[in-house]
Amino acid sequence: MRTSEFPLQTLKETPADAEIVSHRLMLRAGLIRKLAAGLYTWLPLGLRVLRKVECIVREEMDRAGALEVLMPAVQPAELWQESGRWDQYGPELLRFKDRHERDFCFGPTHEEIITDLARNEIKSYKQLPVNFYQIQTKFRDEIRPRFGVMRAREFLMKDAYSFHLDESSLDETYQRMYETYCRIFRRCGLDFRAVRADTGNIGGSDSHEFHVLAASGEDAIAFSNASDYAANVELAEALPPAGPAPLPAEEARLVATPGVRTIAELVESFGIPIERTVKTLVVAAAAEYGGGLIALLVRGDHALNPVKAQKLPQVAKPLRMATEPEIRAAIGAGPGSLGPKDLPIPCIADRSLAVLADFAVGANIDDKHWFGLNWGRDLPLPELADLRNAVDGDPSPDGQGTLTIARGIEVGHIFKLGRKYSAAMKAQVLGEDGRALTMIMGCYGIGVSRLVAAAIEQHHDERGICWPTAIAPFEVALLPLRADKSYRVREATERLYAELKAAGIEVLLDDRDVRAGVMFADMDLIGIPHRLVVGDKGLDTGQVEYKARTAAEPQLVPIAEILGFLRARLSTA
Amino acid sequence: MRTSEFPLQTLKETPADAEIVSHRLMLRAGLIRKLAAGLYTWLPLGLRVLRKVECIVREEMDRAGALEVLMPAVQPAELWQESGRWDQYGPELLRFKDRHERDFCFGPTHEEIITDLARNEIKSYKQLPVNFYQIQTKFRDEIRPRFGVMRAREFLMKDAYSFHLDESSLDETYQRMYETYCRIFRRCGLDFRAVRADTGNIGGSDSHEFHVLAASGEDAIAFSNASDYAANVELAEALPPAGPAPLPAEEARLVATPGVRTIAELVESFGIPIERTVKTLVVAAAAEYGGGLIALLVRGDHALNPVKAQKLPQVAKPLRMATEPEIRAAIGAGPGSLGPKDLPIPCIADRSLAVLADFAVGANIDDKHWFGLNWGRDLPLPELADLRNAVDGDPSPDGQGTLTIARGIEVGHIFKLGRKYSAAMKAQVLGEDGRALTMIMGCYGIGVSRLVAAAIEQHHDERGICWPTAIAPFEVALLPLRADKSYRVREATERLYAELKAAGIEVLLDDRDVRAGVMFADMDLIGIPHRLVVGDKGLDTGQVEYKARTAAEPQLVPIAEILGFLRARLSTA
Repeated sequence: MRTSEFPLQTLKETPADAEIVSHRLMLRAGLIRKLAAGLYTWLPLGLRVLRKVECIVREEMDRAGALEVLMPAVQPAELWQESGRWDQYGPELLRFKDRHERDFCFGPTHEEIITDLARNEIKSYKQLPVNFYQIQTKFRDEIRPRFGVMRAREFLMKDAYSFHLDESSLDETYQRMYETYCRIFRRCGLDFRAVRADTGNIGGSDSHEFHVLAASGEDAIAFSNASDYAANVELAEALPPAGPAPLPAEEARLVATPGVRTIAELVESFGIPIERTVKTLVVAAAAEYGGGLIALLVRGDHALNPVKAQKLPQVAKPLRMATEPEIRAAIGAGPGSLGPKDLPIPCIADRSLAVLADFAVGANIDDKHWFGLNWGRDLPLPELADLRNAVDGDPSPDGQGTLTIARGIEVGHIFKLGRKYSAAMKAQVLGEDGRALTMIMGCYGIGVSRLVAAAIEQHHDERGICWPTAIAPFEVALLPLRADKSYRVREATERLYAELKAAGIEVLLDDRDVRAGVMFADMDLIGIPHRLVVGDKGLDTGQVEYKARTAAEPQLVPIAEILGFLRARLSTA
Repeated sequence: MRTSEFPLQTLKETPADAEIVSHRLMLRAGLIRKLAAGLYTWLPLGLRVLRKVECIVREEMDRAGALEVLMPAVQPAELWQESGRWDQYGPELLRFKDRHERDFCFGPTHEEIITDLARNEIKSYKQLPVNFYQIQTKFRDEIRPRFGVMRAREFLMKDAYSFHLDESSLDETYQRMYETYCRIFRRCGLDFRAVRADTGNIGGSDSHEFHVLAASGEDAIAFSNASDYAANVELAEALPPAGPAPLPAEEARLVATPGVRTIAELVESFGIPIERTVKTLVVAAAAEYGGGLIALLVRGDHALNPVKAQKLPQVAKPLRMATEPEIRAAIGAGPGSLGPKDLPIPCIADRSLAVLADFAVGANIDDKHWFGLNWGRDLPLPELADLRNAVDGDPSPDGQGTLTIARGIEVGHIFKLGRKYSAAMKAQVLGEDGRALTMIMGCYGIGVSRLVAAAIEQHHDERGICWPTAIAPFEVALLPLRADKSYRVREATERLYAELKAAGIEVLLDDRDVRAGVMFADMDLIGIPHRLVVGDKGLDTGQVEYKARTAAEPQLVPIAEILGFLRARLSTA
């Protein structure tokens, strides 16, 4: 392509409302334009990237034996009522009525539709297992769409749904999808981690998320420096500390702490090391445990992990923090002055608290804290549980190495759904013995449009995007220097252009009448991974200048060798 | 592919609610399944066809220099309010509110969105002309969706929009799109006609529809047997008859015709040739012509053409038929007893009436007709106009040959939009002289999913679909006979399968354990254009049996020659 046939729509200004780098760069490079909140038009340059990702996803799903279908975006309410999600799903589900006042929604996902298809089409165990997928436009009415296509309302997704007779067949397909996802993200040139994840509201028994590592990621993931252990911080176990608690060195004392409501204030005003403070958080208790309230304790420098907390049998589901009036009524002090000593409600402590000595906690009296407390001597050690988020340097739960906490952008998610939908919607087949069996399901999603943004978050520098070659809109940028003044440059550029095109290389020839600096800046901004510059100076010695987008310096390459030179770089990219 | 990896989902029964052949065959062949009224899931086999059509459309649009974009399906009301269509568009426009109670619609078309994009992105005449297209899911809330994907609510469409500085640039792109559409439909293997069409409500000055010829088509199109003249019957001129009227042979007489209300009854009861009867239709008159009613006359065997009628200055827009009370109040007789003699309202006659003699008309008295009337002698000849649909055998309006009327299915439509949207939405560029100019637009649509159904309407027989090779789900069906009993058949089939696949031929190997008759019937039903049968008998002489889907008889071909044999057929298909 030439820029005269394929005009660039780069912007000089950074759009004001773009909060993250991928959003800014997608706007500046002319990949997308905003239509309304959470709705984006893909411009020609951006669409080339989107289609490349789509193509990789399709090739790998096909290779894994999945069957591509295309389901409607508009879905009838009846099926969602059958599964129970019509009422459960929040306002993210865009509901509307058609002209006959029948209820429909714009599908954010397709479990109901595919389960309906499967119960109609799959009658016998002989038709199992089967894995259907589609690459299709979805809608989720986010309350606050932001970050461009990263958290858009309308987005392109690959969703797959598999059907099985038994768990071992599901395990097999799940494992194949796991490997397929690894292939897809690897082919896209992304540094990613597959992590164990919470199955959340979607139900089911096993789940992995695939995260592209990037500092701007919304999720924290924990992975070992010595093994392939990786998990969402929501799930990563924080192992119990090794060894016994140190011996007490201080006396317990009740101290007036006027105005101190937070750990930070306690540390600052009294110089207590934060590792010797304890946070007391109060939540609603499970009805089976008498209802009321229960206190959860974590070290002052640790964060309560709500997913772990909610899994405790004593805790009400969903997790609900107690209000200040509730706390005052039950304990007689405000939320900033609580602690485990003489606490009138049940209490569970994170396991790391077991090795604390001489620690400080609220006294359950406003403006008073206990300092120098020790378990056993001053108060009993509460029941222990894993309640906190793992942190950098924690030992890895698999016993190998220590954990690193990194930020990740979730681009894929695989689930074992079990019979959640097939039971609710009576998706049954006849088994080998002629009895009706409810099918077991798995589901497997990739955020195709989100992946484009995630790739940019991981691959950019201060000048713009640095596409991995496999998903770059063009592989090679071809820039003639002062073409208007030099017949030789024009002629050599055209010859190279024809040669590269004939070799099947996707080349963008910049034939605009602009200064070299503008060409360089634009090509860096849009992130073409390989750049060739044709100039009179190089041509004097039969050479052109090559520079990889991510290289510091250009190098000269003889024109006669350029094709082989590029091919080697394109195949290893 | 093997049927074990790519299961067929054919049905033995013809679905009850499918009214047209393509709908029946798409269900029976397992191409689509209904989710709800006008909403269909594309099964793997159908999706392969849809993607092939999509791919041909994309290649040809790219070849024509159009730039692919992808706009959201969900569109904000504000832009539709700007163009005025939010209120004009009927209930086919699916409107809804998002969670913040803002108005949106599911786009049935994208003029507003692309015009908004263009006014933001295109600032200078130097950026013109440009032609953006997308292949994208649309929604039209049809009151009575039917005929499967032919008239579905959710459908796949290619829509393109071009922007220009002047008419001549629009003409050029329009012509290129015309040729591109011809290439697309030709490549899809379709017998089609490009016909002049009415521009209707979308506005603009010039328009062609592309029709796939099929007896089940909803549109009537007229084309010459001696030239390339072709037009929608809505538009095809019915030329004035040659020569003068015959001389009167009968006396005018008022006849009692009790109960006769229609032309058919008149012909049946009184034996009058239908060509000597006149239909009198009463419509609302234009306010500029005093309002009230006006009568339109056509020959008894002709049909009033409402598009032509509405174009008469005397007729109110939109065309509205008068009610019986209105007619009685103005004329004193019911709608079945009207005629031009002594008619108290104005009257315009189709030009073919000028050569009538001894004709019969209502007498404007209930249950009375005039027989044997003649212009001049008994009543004055009214004003004449072209009011009727052209019929088979009419002279072609271009003076060459006669017209044939055929049924067509509209699969494409190109329009010169002019400034309808760009003026309403102020889409301007700076011209060469620095002045702001409103851009001129064209738009170009293809119903991609509808085209699949239209291809079946044109290409089928009593056994099933007969795909043109270019859009067939597979090119070759490979059927082993009694593979379970013959190692030789299995081995030869596998070798052929590997050979064809390696040659890039899309082959479907039927490895089901079913009778030959079932294989043959299924492959005929799903319409694979080329069939190879491997059996022991043929192998005795080193041959396999080849049959084209549309051929009457199979033929034997030596295995060694099969690749070249198929290649020749695939390239000419």
